[in-house]
Amino acid sequence: MDEKSLQNLLSRCQAGDLTIDEVVAAMRRLPFEDIASARIDHHRALRCGFGEVIFCAGKTPEQVGEIFSALAAADQNVLATRATREMFDAVAAGNPQAVFWDMGRAITLQQKPSEQIGHVAIVAAGTSDIPVAEEARVTAMICGANVTTHYDVGVAGVHRLLAELSDLQQARAVVAIAGMEGALASVVGGLVSVPVIAVPTSVGYGASFGGVAALLAMLNSCASGVSVVNIDNGFAGGYNAALINRQIGK
Amino acid sequence: MDEKSLQNLLSRCQAGDLTIDEVVAAMRRLPFEDIASARIDHHRALRCGFGEVIFCAGKTPEQVGEIFSALAAADQNVLATRATREMFDAVAAGNPQAVFWDMGRAITLQQKPSEQIGHVAIVAAGTSDIPVAEEARVTAMICGANVTTHYDVGVAGVHRLLAELSDLQQARAVVAIAGMEGALASVVGGLVSVPVIAVPTSVGYGASFGGVAALLAMLNSCASGVSVVNIDNGFAGGYNAALINRQIGK
Amino acid sequence: MDEKSLQNLLSRCQAGDLTIDEVVAAMRRLPFEDIASARIDHHRALRCGFGEVIFCAGKTPEQVGEIFSALAAADQNVLATRATREMFDAVAAGNPQAVFWDMGRAITLQQKPSEQIGHVAIVAAGTSDIPVAEEARVTAMICGANVTTHYDVGVAGVHRLLAELSDLQQARAVVAIAGMEGALASVVGGLVSVPVIAVPTSVGYGASFGGVAALLAMLNSCASGVSVVNIDNGFAGGYNAALINRQIGK
Amino acid sequence: MDEKSLQNLLSRCQAGDLTIDEVVAAMRRLPFEDIASARIDHHRALRCGFGEVIFCAGKTPEQVGEIFSALAAADQNVLATRATREMFDAVAAGNPQAVFWDMGRAITLQQKPSEQIGHVAIVAAGTSDIPVAEEARVTAMICGANVTTHYDVGVAGVHRLLAELSDLQQARAVVAIAGMEGALASVVGGLVSVPVIAVPTSVGYGASFGGVAALLAMLNSCASGVSVVNIDNGFAGGYNAALINRQIGK
Amino acid sequence: MDEKSLQNLLSRCQAGDLTIDEVVAAMRRLPFEDIASARIDHHRALRCGFGEVIFCAGKTPEQVGEIFSALAAADQNVLATRATREMFDAVAAGNPQAVFWDMGRAITLQQKPSEQIGHVAIVAAGTSDIPVAEEARVTAMICGANVTTHYDVGVAGVHRLLAELSDLQQARAVVAIAGMEGALASVVGGLVSVPVIAVPTSVGYGASFGGVAALLAMLNSCASGVSVVNIDNGFAGGYNAALINRQIGK
Amino acid sequence: MDEKSLQNLLSRCQAGDLTIDEVVAAMRRLPFEDIASARIDHHRALRCGFGEVIFCAGKTPEQVGEIFSALAAADQNVLATRATREMFDAVAAGNPQAVFWDMGRAITLQQKPSEQIGHVAIVAAGTSDIPVAEEARVTAMICGANVTTHYDVGVAGVHRLLAELSDLQQARAVVAIAGMEGALASVVGGLVSVPVIAVPTSVGYGASFGGVAALLAMLNSCASGVSVVNIDNGFAGGYNAALINRQIGK
Amino acid sequence: MDEKSLQNLLSRCQAGDLTIDEVVAAMRRLPFEDIASARIDHHRALRCGFGEVIFCAGKTPEQVGEIFSALAAADQNVLATRATREMFDAVAAGNPQAVFWDMGRAITLQQKPSEQIGHVAIVAAGTSDIPVAEEARVTAMICGANVTTHYDVGVAGVHRLLAELSDLQQARAVVAIAGMEGALASVVGGLVSVPVIAVPTSVGYGASFGGVAALLAMLNSCASGVSVVNIDNGFAGGYNAALINRQIGK
Amino acid sequence: MDEKSLQNLLSRCQAGDLTIDEVVAAMRRLPFEDIASARIDHHRALRCGFGEVIFCAGKTPEQVGEIFSALAAADQNVLATRATREMFDAVAAGNPQAVFWDMGRAITLQQKPSEQIGHVAIVAAGTSDIPVAEEARVTAMICGANVTTHYDVGVAGVHRLLAELSDLQQARAVVAIAGMEGALASVVGGLVSVPVIAVPTSVGYGASFGGVAALLAMLNSCASGVSVVNIDNGFAGGYNAALINRQIGK
Repeated sequence: MDEKSLQNLLSRCQAGDLTIDEVVAAMRRLPFEDIASARIDHHRALRCGFGEVIFCAGKTPEQVGEIFSALAAADQNVLATRATREMFDAVAAGNPQAVFWDMGRAITLQQKPSEQIGHVAIVAAGTSDIPVAEEARVTAMICGANVTTHYDVGVAGVHRLLAELSDLQQARAVVAIAGMEGALASVVGGLVSVPVIAVPTSVGYGASFGGVAALLAMLNSCASGVSVVNIDNGFAGGYNAALINRQIGK
Repeated sequence: MDEKSLQNLLSRCQAGDLTIDEVVAAMRRLPFEDIASARIDHHRALRCGFGEVIFCAGKTPEQVGEIFSALAAADQNVLATRATREMFDAVAAGNPQAVFWDMGRAITLQQKPSEQIGHVAIVAAGTSDIPVAEEARVTAMICGANVTTHYDVGVAGVHRLLAELSDLQQARAVVAIAGMEGALASVVGGLVSVPVIAVPTSVGYGASFGGVAALLAMLNSCASGVSVVNIDNGFAGGYNAALINRQIGK
Repeated sequence: MDEKSLQNLLSRCQAGDLTIDEVVAAMRRLPFEDIASARIDHHRALRCGFGEVIFCAGKTPEQVGEIFSALAAADQNVLATRATREMFDAVAAGNPQAVFWDMGRAITLQQKPSEQIGHVAIVAAGTSDIPVAEEARVTAMICGANVTTHYDVGVAGVHRLLAELSDLQQARAVVAIAGMEGALASVVGGLVSVPVIAVPTSVGYGASFGGVAALLAMLNSCASGVSVVNIDNGFAGGYNAALINRQIGK
Repeated sequence: MDEKSLQNLLSRCQAGDLTIDEVVAAMRRLPFEDIASARIDHHRALRCGFGEVIFCAGKTPEQVGEIFSALAAADQNVLATRATREMFDAVAAGNPQAVFWDMGRAITLQQKPSEQIGHVAIVAAGTSDIPVAEEARVTAMICGANVTTHYDVGVAGVHRLLAELSDLQQARAVVAIAGMEGALASVVGGLVSVPVIAVPTSVGYGASFGGVAALLAMLNSCASGVSVVNIDNGFAGGYNAALINRQIGK
Repeated sequence: MDEKSLQNLLSRCQAGDLTIDEVVAAMRRLPFEDIASARIDHHRALRCGFGEVIFCAGKTPEQVGEIFSALAAADQNVLATRATREMFDAVAAGNPQAVFWDMGRAITLQQKPSEQIGHVAIVAAGTSDIPVAEEARVTAMICGANVTTHYDVGVAGVHRLLAELSDLQQARAVVAIAGMEGALASVVGGLVSVPVIAVPTSVGYGASFGGVAALLAMLNSCASGVSVVNIDNGFAGGYNAALINRQIGK
Repeated sequence: MDEKSLQNLLSRCQAGDLTIDEVVAAMRRLPFEDIASARIDHHRALRCGFGEVIFCAGKTPEQVGEIFSALAAADQNVLATRATREMFDAVAAGNPQAVFWDMGRAITLQQKPSEQIGHVAIVAAGTSDIPVAEEARVTAMICGANVTTHYDVGVAGVHRLLAELSDLQQARAVVAIAGMEGALASVVGGLVSVPVIAVPTSVGYGASFGGVAALLAMLNSCASGVSVVNIDNGFAGGYNAALINRQIGK
Repeated sequence: MDEKSLQNLLSRCQAGDLTIDEVVAAMRRLPFEDIASARIDHHRALRCGFGEVIFCAGKTPEQVGEIFSALAAADQNVLATRATREMFDAVAAGNPQAVFWDMGRAITLQQKPSEQIGHVAIVAAGTSDIPVAEEARVTAMICGANVTTHYDVGVAGVHRLLAELSDLQQARAVVAIAGMEGALASVVGGLVSVPVIAVPTSVGYGASFGGVAALLAMLNSCASGVSVVNIDNGFAGGYNAALINRQIGK
Repeated sequence: MDEKSLQNLLSRCQAGDLTIDEVVAAMRRLPFEDIASARIDHHRALRCGFGEVIFCAGKTPEQVGEIFSALAAADQNVLATRATREMFDAVAAGNPQAVFWDMGRAITLQQKPSEQIGHVAIVAAGTSDIPVAEEARVTAMICGANVTTHYDVGVAGVHRLLAELSDLQQARAVVAIAGMEGALASVVGGLVSVPVIAVPTSVGYGASFGGVAALLAMLNSCASGVSVVNIDNGFAGGYNAALINRQIGK
């Protein structure tokens, strides 16, 4: 409901094509619809740049399938995160073109012809961080970005990271993913001139407190261009990077 | 020290203009210098897009003045945050063109002809959040962004925020600043299609735990395009937004 | 044991109908009884407005059945929360009119003719919050309130909430249920003129810390009429709203 | 901006008295105004039942005076909390009828003829909790409630509380204020049949963690009708109780 | 190794019955022995008043059986806490007189003729606290105390507790066991003139944080004679009470 | 108000000496009185074994003086903790026999002829723990115990503690006071056969978190007879030890 | 890539044996290689003194087997920690000489002729700490140290520890392992003149918070030569001790 | 009191030169002495390798002076940390050769001819970490180590650290000091083959929580040879490094 539609409504009201009550009602009727388990917000693609994303954790395969189909019916690209294979089966029944990303625990459906643009780089500290990194990668991809990945480049062997430097320095945004002490974000942030989206992971044990150690490290990064998303939130990492990438254009 | 300079060094070495030891030494001599209280990293402007920023808290006015002058001598723009007027006096003695931003507790020196581009929007929930917001504003400005501000638009009166919507929706990045329950970031994040940099503030008392409540709320935002920086870190908010703004270009 | 009964006891004592020891004993014998697994407080309905509620978690189906029957024997309405179907089976054996609320994980037995009065509104941010919301709904209902529900109206799409506004503004109390960043309570609190009982839920992951993020957000709400109950405590949300609703009367 | 005004606007638009652009503009112009330090929300009294309250902490006396006068100019009752005497002096200069409540650290201005109704009871555990209790009392009073207070009735001498029972049982809402172990809320909650608003205070030391111990105790209250507000938030305690009291009417 | 044995050793050394090296060795050989899985400290009964207690959690049934038999071989009473029935089976094989306390999850072996003395009272807030309370009861019993128990006397119905008062006031020590808000310890502490050992339990959910809320409440008790042991540590509650009881004598 | 007085009241009622209303009123009139700043509980000495203790922190010298005099008027011993010299001056004006304990920050007034009995031992780990230890000592003393002290016997030089062993082993209760890692309680608990009251102190820095490290260590003591009180609560340490000491008698 | 190899590269460049681009490329090509699941850093043995260690938790047996074989192929000693027997089976298939340490949950492969030197002592407080202690022992061993162990010597029976003193005092480094209150590190630290590496364990319950109590105690140790590693990190304990041992030489 | 003195005592006893009681007494009389404010442990130098160190925080200048002189009288080197200039003045009065280290807030007295050996390297991330680094440097020095320092080499400009690499790689132990995200320890740990003692500092703000972020990062370091001491504990950093250095010898 932007100003243009409002002006249009008012014009039609002024012209007598719509009664006052019809205008009031129209202003109420925003573009979402009720299905059994969720109130879907089709409007979001316009408002936020990408449609509603399905966060599968805590939902049944049936619910995931139902919501997925509802979103697919609007002819947009669909993304479901934290998905299990069982959920994918429920989705695939009604959406045979949907793809399951095993490592990244995601389901995508590409309905709009895609032209990948720009460059988002994803770096991950250890092999255990890869599921989160893959969630970021799939997300950035479905949002239209070219993506490069650099895994197992933790700071305990900083030369591994330095070897990847030229690719990182060419990216438009970098997603830095690490658990344990989360130092990767700071080191990367000191090496590149673009925004770094830091994703702490719950990888670690003991005093890592399920990712809190990495989260705090990233929030306190001494490098300037670093911002942080929730623990294990690979989706947010990829999404923010893709938003930046998309704005810059081709 | 990029590949080009390396190749240049090697050429001169191959040509016999430089001995091997001279090359090794040159590769060691990276562009930072020692002054009494800090090792200044002039290289950072090239590597990260903006020169080293002076975080004044915990430094004496003399130290601030000394570091400021060293950075100024490199003919770049200079930014000092968390500055007091007393620090400014120490800076101004040697840098008469430096400007003090009282509300934002910052000192700037604009040495390169500036052309402000693009659009960064800064929203703050309450009047007590304004110092953090102003730090963000000054930072984004010195980094070359046009900035609009919307203060006192907290979610307890959501119509105040909605009234500012069209400006927010035209920005390239939004900095959302709030203490207490930090809900502003989520509401803004649901209304715009560009990255939202959320800055929790220590405004509040009791169970706000010095900004932790707002920080956690922002990290858990149900809106997708939100990333978070440290509590009260207005600088990081403005800097990240300006990085995004700059990449998009004019 | 109120003043009237005390005066009555004393009168009978003065009249010689009761010995002193009998009076002392009577004052000791407050209206609770011992069954095997719990000391039931039948007096509570008088003292607090609703009888003792069975919190089933950590009890065996047999214990739940036993306590339920003991409460039912006092001819009052009975409510058991956090119940499983297996517990319900144990209850239903002896109380065939008991009803199981699957989504809200509750068992009720309506023994007193009910006249639902007033209006309690329940809003929940996401689909995962619905079990807590349903617990609130069943509780408010068995306590005699008319209830309306508005689910999946989280603040990331604030127009969804605004669309429900007129119903919310007609309620006598609103229960606002949300996990993640818990911002719903603040936005609702800024829109209505009645008490808002905020229920944080453990929905979320990472830095939501099992509901702590939402709890803190709600405690720090910048809206004035908001009070908070324990994480996932839908019962307390519904109960407090119903207490308010009942006091106002028809 | 309710439906009636909207319909009125549209009628005038339809009638040609207003252009479309004027309507759009009017819909933007919601009833708040900008003064130097805050965006005042005069609309709140209609929407929420009481006008905006000034939280003085972190504001200068000048800012408090300015905001107070702006609110006073709207002919409503005004309340400022966490006020110092110095702030009061700034307020009193322009508002000679304003009253300073030393113990409760509040400033009030009663502009509308007041008729105190109903009954709110305030209980506080120890003498150190009195400032918070007084803030609650002043708030409930300015919101139109008759208030009774019972101070120094902590649970370590439970007979002191029991002696006050009949007054508590006649109240429409009880505000229970305690620091240290915060047990007062549970004991009171088990004795009355009306909502108990629990206010944890920062009174205590060591493992009280500035009120966290009391806060947690109150959130975990085994009594059913207890809800909780932020640490030391006497205002919220009194406000919520007064909201309930007001709804019930005379 | 007390002064008497030392003097004895030295006498024998002086008399030539022991060489110097034998004395040095004897002073090293303190009364513990090595078995496969633990270094048993038979000396503790002398030093601390009760032999080593077996904490079964994290041990295999075989280990429990082995340690139990080693302690039993020293003809003292034996206590094993946090035991499962499977562990008991392993114990009973070699110690047919051992007893399993199902509710209190403990195994005891009474080998010394017992004369129960004095009076320890155990109060527990809710039915879910009973396992911890029973652990306390079995412990106090095996340590020679007469024990009375009062379960389900939580403070939300304070009259239930007051009804038990005369027994509590006759005890030599009271163990107060509660989860959730842990207020029981304070109320009991205000009613008796003997030491109260408070045992927080992990009963509760959400913001009870596994017993932390009750622990903090008990540590901050406004009643003077309250000391606290670890969460769910019924053993320590019973043991400390029994220590006090035993010192007073018959 | 014990059973005897109740029976006496009832007898007089039965005999017509008292009306029913007089009895009801008498039962209400429990032995506490109102002074300006606190509701004093003279009854506590009977109920709990020692009169109300004044916790001075957060009170003005005038308040302390007033409460102190009110308690002194009841001819009991009086103890005020966390007192400053300024508070003592206010007390001494009206109570010339009051004594100020500089190191222990306490004021006492010994009005009942004292016969010190038994033996309480107080051990403190470091010199910085002495103020808390002295508070414990003064408290135990005014409660009638003979007290021995052993300061600066921290576990980093365990021989210092072992050298004091024979005195510790003769005490009826030991108060173990330590900050930093709080290990003293465990080592002492393993060496004596009487209750150990552990008092964590806020001595330390960094990860001692104001005494939390010591508190947790003490709660997790692997020695059996250890119970814990609040951080820096020397009073509770001395009081609990004295309670135990007093029960045993001469 | 040390200075010598750099000079060598440059010489060959100067001599024309290598082109400039080849030199730049060589400087990029640091000695690590990519296998499917991890980027192995063979260089680490040179740089850090021991090759990369496999942390098995969160890896599949296949991944462990693959990485193990890759490391083994470099003819170095290999260590895998937190291994299950299932993982060992996967390793043993390709590395028949690998050894599984059941208690210490580790796999080792000794390929270089070993000469154990020096002396590392490992002390553990309780039987439940043994798995962590064994991980430390296996680690120190594979790193070439002679190791002595002293288990079940917790401070609640400090004589048990003192009996082991002469061995501890002869070690070059001591690893002190304890859960619960973690006091062992402080007592040991006060008795020896060599570095103590403290390893907190997650042994305990309730307020041990999964090892946090022991961790904090160790960080706050009043003994000077104590440093701390992560909770349950027996590997780091053994590794640090072995590093010290190795530096001292035979 | 080692075995030799014990054997000597026993010989003299056997020879009749000492009575048994004299031996017992001698064994009690361990080498510490009482002065007014502390029990000094002269024995520690033998047992632990360096005499008792004075932690000045919380002591008066007089106490510091008194303890310093007592330690100095034993002809050993003396170290006092966290000292103010005022404390130094009190020390210098009686110990004119004592030296004050302004930046490191330490006082030293070198009484034994010193021969500095080996090599300890100290790296600090930022200029604000220098006081802690200087405390480490002075400590290592007084303990006999040659020390090199590398300040302002934080990871946000990792080339600054790499430029110092050859010195770091030649040290026998490295002390890595950093606040904020504490990543320095991990990067250094990955570059050297000797033990790294990590010292988190309280430098930072907001979510650094007074050094907790750095502490957690360091405990979770992905590099193997890192151990950690308390926040801001430069002394422990220097002391542990010096212990290692000393063991290796010249």
